[in-house]
Formats: sequence, C-alpha cells, structure tokens
Amino acid sequence: MKKKIVVLGGSFGGLTAALEVKRLMGAKVDVTVISADKDFVFLPSLPWLILGSRRQADITLGVADILEPRGIAFIHETVQAVKPDELKVCTEKQEYPYDYLVISTGPHLSCEEIPGLSPDKGYTHCTFTMDYALKSREAWKKLLENPGPIVLGSTQLASCFGPYYELAFEMDYELRKRKMRHKVPITYLSSEPYLGHMGVGGLGMSRRFLEDEFARLDIKTITSQAIDEVAPDEIRLAGGGKVPFKLAMLAPPFKGVAGVASLGNPRGFIPADNYYRHPEHSNIYPIGVAMALAPPEPTPVPTGVPKTGFMTVRMAKAAAANIAADLENHALVSEKELSVVCLMDMGRTAALMVADPVLPPRQRSYIKKAVWAKWAKVLFEKYFLWKLRHGYSRLP
Amino acid sequence: MKKKIVVLGGSFGGLTAALEVKRLMGAKVDVTVISADKDFVFLPSLPWLILGSRRQADITLGVADILEPRGIAFIHETVQAVKPDELKVCTEKQEYPYDYLVISTGPHLSCEEIPGLSPDKGYTHCTFTMDYALKSREAWKKLLENPGPIVLGSTQLASCFGPYYELAFEMDYELRKRKMRHKVPITYLSSEPYLGHMGVGGLGMSRRFLEDEFARLDIKTITSQAIDEVAPDEIRLAGGGKVPFKLAMLAPPFKGVAGVASLGNPRGFIPADNYYRHPEHSNIYPIGVAMALAPPEPTPVPTGVPKTGFMTVRMAKAAAANIAADLENHALVSEKELSVVCLMDMGRTAALMVADPVLPPRQRSYIKKAVWAKWAKVLFEKYFLWKLRHGYSRLP
Amino acid sequence: MKKKIVVLGGSFGGLTAALEVKRLMGAKVDVTVISADKDFVFLPSLPWLILGSRRQADITLGVADILEPRGIAFIHETVQAVKPDELKVCTEKQEYPYDYLVISTGPHLSCEEIPGLSPDKGYTHCTFTMDYALKSREAWKKLLENPGPIVLGSTQLASCFGPYYELAFEMDYELRKRKMRHKVPITYLSSEPYLGHMGVGGLGMSRRFLEDEFARLDIKTITSQAIDEVAPDEIRLAGGGKVPFKLAMLAPPFKGVAGVASLGNPRGFIPADNYYRHPEHSNIYPIGVAMALAPPEPTPVPTGVPKTGFMTVRMAKAAAANIAADLENHALVSEKELSVVCLMDMGRTAALMVADPVLPPRQRSYIKKAVWAKWAKVLFEKYFLWKLRHGYSRLP
Repeated sequence: MKKKIVVLGGSFGGLTAALEVKRLMGAKVDVTVISADKDFVFLPSLPWLILGSRRQADITLGVADILEPRGIAFIHETVQAVKPDELKVCTEKQEYPYDYLVISTGPHLSCEEIPGLSPDKGYTHCTFTMDYALKSREAWKKLLENPGPIVLGSTQLASCFGPYYELAFEMDYELRKRKMRHKVPITYLSSEPYLGHMGVGGLGMSRRFLEDEFARLDIKTITSQAIDEVAPDEIRLAGGGKVPFKLAMLAPPFKGVAGVASLGNPRGFIPADNYYRHPEHSNIYPIGVAMALAPPEPTPVPTGVPKTGFMTVRMAKAAAANIAADLENHALVSEKELSVVCLMDMGRTAALMVADPVLPPRQRSYIKKAVWAKWAKVLFEKYFLWKLRHGYSRLP
Repeated sequence: MKKKIVVLGGSFGGLTAALEVKRLMGAKVDVTVISADKDFVFLPSLPWLILGSRRQADITLGVADILEPRGIAFIHETVQAVKPDELKVCTEKQEYPYDYLVISTGPHLSCEEIPGLSPDKGYTHCTFTMDYALKSREAWKKLLENPGPIVLGSTQLASCFGPYYELAFEMDYELRKRKMRHKVPITYLSSEPYLGHMGVGGLGMSRRFLEDEFARLDIKTITSQAIDEVAPDEIRLAGGGKVPFKLAMLAPPFKGVAGVASLGNPRGFIPADNYYRHPEHSNIYPIGVAMALAPPEPTPVPTGVPKTGFMTVRMAKAAAANIAADLENHALVSEKELSVVCLMDMGRTAALMVADPVLPPRQRSYIKKAVWAKWAKVLFEKYFLWKLRHGYSRLP
Repeated sequence: MKKKIVVLGGSFGGLTAALEVKRLMGAKVDVTVISADKDFVFLPSLPWLILGSRRQADITLGVADILEPRGIAFIHETVQAVKPDELKVCTEKQEYPYDYLVISTGPHLSCEEIPGLSPDKGYTHCTFTMDYALKSREAWKKLLENPGPIVLGSTQLASCFGPYYELAFEMDYELRKRKMRHKVPITYLSSEPYLGHMGVGGLGMSRRFLEDEFARLDIKTITSQAIDEVAPDEIRLAGGGKVPFKLAMLAPPFKGVAGVASLGNPRGFIPADNYYRHPEHSNIYPIGVAMALAPPEPTPVPTGVPKTGFMTVRMAKAAAANIAADLENHALVSEKELSVVCLMDMGRTAALMVADPVLPPRQRSYIKKAVWAKWAKVLFEKYFLWKLRHGYSRLP
C-alpha cells in the first residue's frame, strides 16, 4: 500500500514539503495537505499591501490550485488534534491516518495574553494574516487623512521583527513623500534588548546600522520593553509608561497552534532533532514557526527566534528529503545549521541581511544597504509566485 | 492718527520687526524701537571675537544709525514695565503709548541662580553679550600663556548650546595650531541629556556625529549634569563631582527680562498663539528668546529650546506681516511651524544643520560636515551686516 | 677609571640602553647587561608564533651574540637586589658595582593574584614570554581540532591590551579561513572600562572603531570586569558570572620584578623624574614596564598604562643620552612626554594607532585601518631583527 504523507499547513513550509515529497517520490506516496486557510498568501508582501502598492489578488493563490494539478490532495479543515500513537490527525470532521506527518502550522497569534491587543478589537493592528493586513491598510488610510502618532514594533514573546522595521522605514518614506512626516511622530517599540537584535542577538553591525538610520529619520526607539495593556489610544507599558498612538501595529506573542500544541513545549512549539524529527515520534517532522528553536541567549524581556519564509522553505526541503530517504532506507541528512538571507525593505532602498548560520557565532554575517536589494525583493516575490502558479514543483 | 508700533529690543528680532513693519506700512505708521543696548552686535560672531579673528568694530553697528535713516525712532532706555490695559510701555524716564507692541527683549542671563556663575565675578565666562565676550577674550589670551583645563558648555535651564559646541571645536583647533593641545584638557559639560541634543531632542544623527567628533578630538564629555556652584578654579556638580578649570565658559540659566516678565510664565517667557500674538493681548507680539516655546520632551536636567538669530528673524517677519495685515484688515498668517538652518563652526571646517520644523517629528533634518559651510558662515555675517549698514530694509 | 654602566634587562629597553650608551661613549665606559633571559625575543610577533606564522628561531636572537661584538659584557643571571647606597647590584652568584644603573626588567606576570590563572597550571594562557607563547600555540592547535569557545582579554591590573585585541582579530580571521568560525564563540573579556580604552583612556575613535569591528565580526565583549578565579573550563567573574572556554588567553596582573621592587611603589614599579631618573637615586634610570606611569584617570576595574616596545626604546635612548650627558657634564634632556605609534594586526588588514603624547589630552591621536599597516608591521619586524643581527648599534 502507498505510504501516506500528511502535511499540516498550506503556507511556505506546508506547500514546499508537500511539493517536494511528491517531486521526490511521485506515485509511490499519497500526499495530503490539511490547512485552515484555503489561500496561500505571500506574507512578506503584506507590508506593501498595507501601504497600498499591492492588491490582495497580487499576492494570493488558492492552495488547491497549486496542489491538485500536482496530484496532491487538499483538505480545507482545521486540525483539532494529533494522535501520534494511533498515527492519526483529527479535524472537526474526520480523522486522517498518516505514515509521516509534517507539521508546518505556523504561529498562533496569542493576542489574548495582552488585554486590548487583538486586532479584532480594533485598537492595534498587525501584519501576519491577509485579514489583519487589510484592516491595517484601512487604518493607514485613516491616518493619512487624520495624522497623528504611529507606534510600530513587537510585544514580549513575539518572534518576528522584520516586518515592523520595514513598516517603520516604509511609512516614514510615504509620509515624507506626502510632506506630512512632521505631523506624525513614529516610535519603534520593541521587546528586543536593542535595535537590530531581531531575536537573533543582532547580525553583524545591525545595531549600529539601525540606530543610525532611525536617528537620521527621527524614528524614536523604546527597546527592552514589555507591554501590559492596550487602550484605544495608548499603549500601557510594563513599569508604568504610556505611549499614545493614532495607528499602532505590533507583533503579538507567538504560540504554537492549539491542534498540535500537545506535541510541544509549554508555548506549543514542537521540538525537533537535527533531522527535523520529533525526538519521540520519528515520523513527525515539525518545521517553520511550529518548530521550537531556543534563543541564542535569554533577553531581559522575552523574545523568540524568527523563522523566515526563507528558513521555513529550507526546513521543509530538508524534512521532505529525509522522509524520502527514510522511505527508501537511505541515510538521513542532518541540516539543522540553517543560514538565512533576508531583504529588508527600507522605502526607497532596502537592506540585505545575511546570517550563516542563523544564530551566533557565525561564519558569515552582515547587513548592507543597497538599492539593488529593493529590486531583488520585488523580483523574488514575482518569481516565487510565478513558479507556484505555473506548476513548478521545485520552489526556489 | 497714525498707529503707533512700539518694538522692544534692538537685536535680530527688534530690528527686523521694526524695519519690516516700516517697509510694509511706510508713512501710515509710527515705529519706535526701545532698547537698553545702543549697539547691535552680530552675536553669532562672538566666538570668533573671543578667539581673536574679529574685532569689536567688525561686528557692531549703532542701532540709531540703522533705524533713523529709515524713519524709525530709537529710544535708548530700559523697559521697566508693560501696561497692557493702558497700552503703555514704561521706562524709568517716561511712558510710551502703543497700538501694537513687539517684544523681542531676548534673555535675561540668570547667573544669580548658580552661586559663583556670573562672569562679573570673573570665575567663568560666557558669550552672550559683547562685554562678556571681551572678558572671555582676555581669559582665552591668559590661557594661551598659562595653559590648563578648559570647560565649555551649559548649565541647567540654559537654552542656547550651539556657541559652546563651536567654542569647543574652535579652541581645540587653535590649540592644535599652536602645538599645545596636549597641555589643555577640554571638557564639554552640559545639561543636555546627550551630546547633540541641543535642546531640540537632537537633529538627524547629531548625537553620533558629535560623539564621534569629540572622541576624535579628545574632547571629554559630561552630559545630563546640573551645576551646584562655581568656585574660582572648579565647577561643583550636582551629585558631588568637581571639574577643575583654568578657563570655563558656560551658558547660564535663561529667563525673560524683568520689564516684560509679568506678561509671561514663571520664568518670564511670554506665550504666543500661532500668529505670534499674546493669547490675552492680541496686539502684543512676543518673538525670539522672549517668546515661550515648550521643549519637545522634558529632559532629566531641565533645558530650553534655543531660538537662533535665524529663527528670530523669521518670527519677526511673521509678526510684522501680521501687524500690517491687522492694520489693513487682512487675514493673519499663521507661521508657527518654524524651520531652522544653522551653520556650526568647527575650526577648520563647519557643519550645516537643518531642522524643518525646529522640533521633532520633522519632515526634514540632518547635520552634515562641509568646508563650504565654513565659508557660508563667514559670508553670511558679511552680507547681513552689509545690508544693515547700507540701508536695506529687507533683511535676509 | 672607566665608569661602569650596568643595565638590567635584555629586551627592548635593556638592549637599546646598552647599545646606545656604548655608541655615545665608546671606550670611555664599561657597559654590562645582566638579564635572566639569554635570548632576546621580538615579543610583538608572539601572536604570530601562536597562530603558526612564525617559528621560534624567526624571532629569537642570543643576547650575547648581540652585545659582545659591540664590546658589551653580558651576564646571564637573575638580579636579586639593588643596593643603591652601596652602588651595587646583587645576583644570586655575585655583586656588580655600578656608577649608573639602567633598570629595564619588564613585568613580573603576577598570575598568583588570581587562583588558577597561571599558564603553568594549564587552564589559561598568555603571550608575554616565548615559553607561554609556545604553550599557547599548542592550545590553539588543539582548539582547531576540537573547536569551542575562546576567551581573550585582560585581568584587573593588567597593563598590556594590544596583543589580545590582535589575537581576537587574528583568530577570527583564521577560523573564517577554515570555515569553522561558527563553531567557536569568541569573547573579549577585559578590565578596560570600554572597548578600545587600552589603558590610556582610548585613542581618537578607538572605542567606536573596535565596537564596530567586533560587532561586524560577532566578537562578544565583556568590559569593566574583574576576575575572581579561573577553573579548568570556565572563568569566574567578580560579581558572579561565569564564562566557559576551551581556549583562554588573558593578560595577568602586572608587577615590577622582585629583584628591583624595593626601589618602587607597592606594586614594584619604580618612579622616575622627567629625565628618567629615580627621584632619590639620580644615577638609577628605570625605563619601560619597570617604570611607574600613573593612569590618566582611575578606571572602575583597575588597569595600568601599557608601555610598548616602541615607547621603551624611546625611553632607553633618552636614558642613555642623559647618562652620556651627565658623564660629560652636559645638561640633561627632559623627554618624558612620549608619543607612541602602534600597528595592531587585524588578520587580513591592520590598524595604525598614533597617540602624541601617549596619555590624553593629546596634540594628535587617531586609529585608522589600512592594509599597508599590515605590511608595515611585517617589515618593521624584519628590519628591527636585521639591524640587531648585523651589528648596527643604532636601533630604529
């Protein structure tokens, strides 16, 4: 009987893992993707959608449209539980048996940990889903009509910082173009111990780089700061301070999603060995944000290590290769020492960031401002979506 | 009957306001300037006078010589009081009725707030009047003969920092030219929370810029520091430290001058609306240092917002235009969002500083070192004084 | 009878002083060098020996081979005591009378002040003698086979910092060449109050320069730190922290050597007047590390002022000139305001450091990265050793 590969999640990690296993094993396996979202959204472009240079359709593809032509089944359901001893995944409707399980369910945005934080409440916003990004876009439009203070950044236990740096640069740039920057104080408020930490202990001269850029652009900084509560027009800081805002966008605390959290640590992130396998269930492969990755060192206000789309794709390929190797009784390949290449938009220009490996100490790391990086960022988005649309099973 | 415009003050603000109202309204108004100083001194050049590259006559003009050829009366008296309900200004000798009053009386140097601080005592010096600058020049000459530690900077509640940065750069440069810099430790001691704050929350990368320059030039820095007392050869700091000196020049606390203080806040600075009018007496226009301007944010040691000659001239023109508009029943023009362009001498070179508006957040701000800025500074002084001398009623 | 000049020490200071007095006075004087080391080692090259680009023979010369052809006697003994009232130096074997005594005995590496610190114990290493450098070389080789954390820096009361900065840059560079930098966290741990202080209160922009370079290279920094104890695999910090290591190299506390310490301060460093003469015994000239030199200002963790080979050679020449002047009844020349030029190896490149004078305030100081400085450093080593080998009595 054909082996059953079940993949949870339909974003960078889930799609890559499913396509890659299918590419490697073809008809020898049944691959099924289960995801709560029927659309794939190119998340790195959400800041551009918020600022108005992308429409929803530009960066969205139907998951079924991607998978089905390649012979992969798509189930649009939410995972309720994983039963590793019975080799089954349960949704609200049904149970799905598996021989191998890839978990790439991404983050649960744990807004409930900070009163008033949820974008559903409408006080603050965030970038991590299309819905939230669309709301953010409306909020940005309102701010342009009725200018006032902007606050951007991340709460305690967030583990994604890049988009908020991008938003700071992009909003600054847009406001200057509109000759209204002086009506909009911008504050970058973060749990990071210092500017440019990014959850990875900094990266080359990222601290000095961002301190200089923010000073040059009059972007105020509050770091190493936890948040107690969000009120309709101000953020209440741990320790008593208050930061007023007309528009605030904050990365919330991250957790693993409920349906798979029982396999993981207290915050629901799932441990993995050097082959991306669960230490106790060697046929379960947690990847991407779902996978637990310890910070390089504790920070005064807790932060997490970000897992970018780039990293998640690399993890998914390694997991897929190891599933294929296991199926064919080849030796597994350890590839846990991930490197990362990142392009941070800065409005008119962009910055290339390289860390190899992701966490220090590193063989290679730097941050470098370059106009070509802006073009590279745009081109990569087009190229990636074009590949997905046109049936290429090998992602970049 | 002709309307009476009385202008208090004969420096940048007073001269500009008087010349500008006269230029706009001509024979329709009587303009009178009352000032305690019979000379106009180009104050930005006082550091050069102290260092020996300007003589007193180079940068001094008689106020009467400037005003009288343009049909403006000059009264060389000290204002004792303003009676806004009677529309009168009182000096010790006489009362002067007014229809409009421009107050540009500048600062009272409130040395009495810190024991031993007054330049009259002879321990420390400052740059803000010709007399004090001449004393400073003598002190500088003595230091060159008998070298020892220099302290430059500003006390709590000072609201002018630029000249002391200039003096630090200029003295460093002069001492190096004389091959004696190693005999003269230079300390920049300031109430500013950090180098380059300048009372305006910094300006682009001014902090890093000045930290780097001072490190390069071995100029030691003490910031966020209040002063308890000045002794003949040491400055006693709040908190207990002591800084020895052979030559010290410090900006004293600023207040409004006594004769107009009753119109203002507890420190004697006079509030103004967006049209530069006193909120309660709409025919009174406080401008320049006399006008109250709240700091962008409180600093641990209190500092004030500087009002440069450049800013004061802009305020004076706006006030004059609004008086003219009011006289002719035109709409007043709000122009409270001042920008500032500043040239800071650095010895061999200079820095161009731009802040638009003056206080953050800003549409545009930067600091930039450039040799041409040194020449621009010299040329501007010549051009400004040439215009005043040759009867131009429109100042740059 | 010929005057007897006795020189204690056979390194930069002792050799230079002996050769220079002989060059100036020729047959009119008897010059004798007494040293516990029979070899002269070009100490600045020890980091290169440790890293493997120099052999012991490349940078070692016999002291007797240098001195005897120039008519200078060499006694290979350890000084036990100086009897200034009897004008005698005692070794364990004999007494040597002198008319003039130059003391250039360098540092006693006072490892006993910190439990576990001595390189003889084998936990940590240092660069200051050929023996210790050879041990360090073995430790470095072992680290390359079995990579792990490196700690480099200086303990409290050390007064030599440069070689540990060099080792940090060089080891980083070597590890990157071998593609194993990510397996080796590097920590620079120092008693200096901040990076680039170097015991001299910094030097131009040395602080920013080194902060930037270390950030760029992922070298972690702990400054203003005293050390309580060294265990086999961790350094225990004053205040409770611990830094684990596989390879650690630390500058130990410095003292004056035992045989001359009675002439000096509590740490055995010997005072000198502006002519390099002992204040109480004007025929005794302490130079180099043996001479007491007060730090420019106290540091939170005590540090000492380094005396480089460059400085020591300058002191030795001044002392020799003054002995010659005294013998011929000429006026002595004061030359205590030393300047220093330093080339710091940085792996692929190097930095030129200039401080004139050594301690602030200074007429001139800067730090500047330049590839030519790397070549200059190599060439200077060759030139200096070539001069010594080929009988030139005038050292550069």
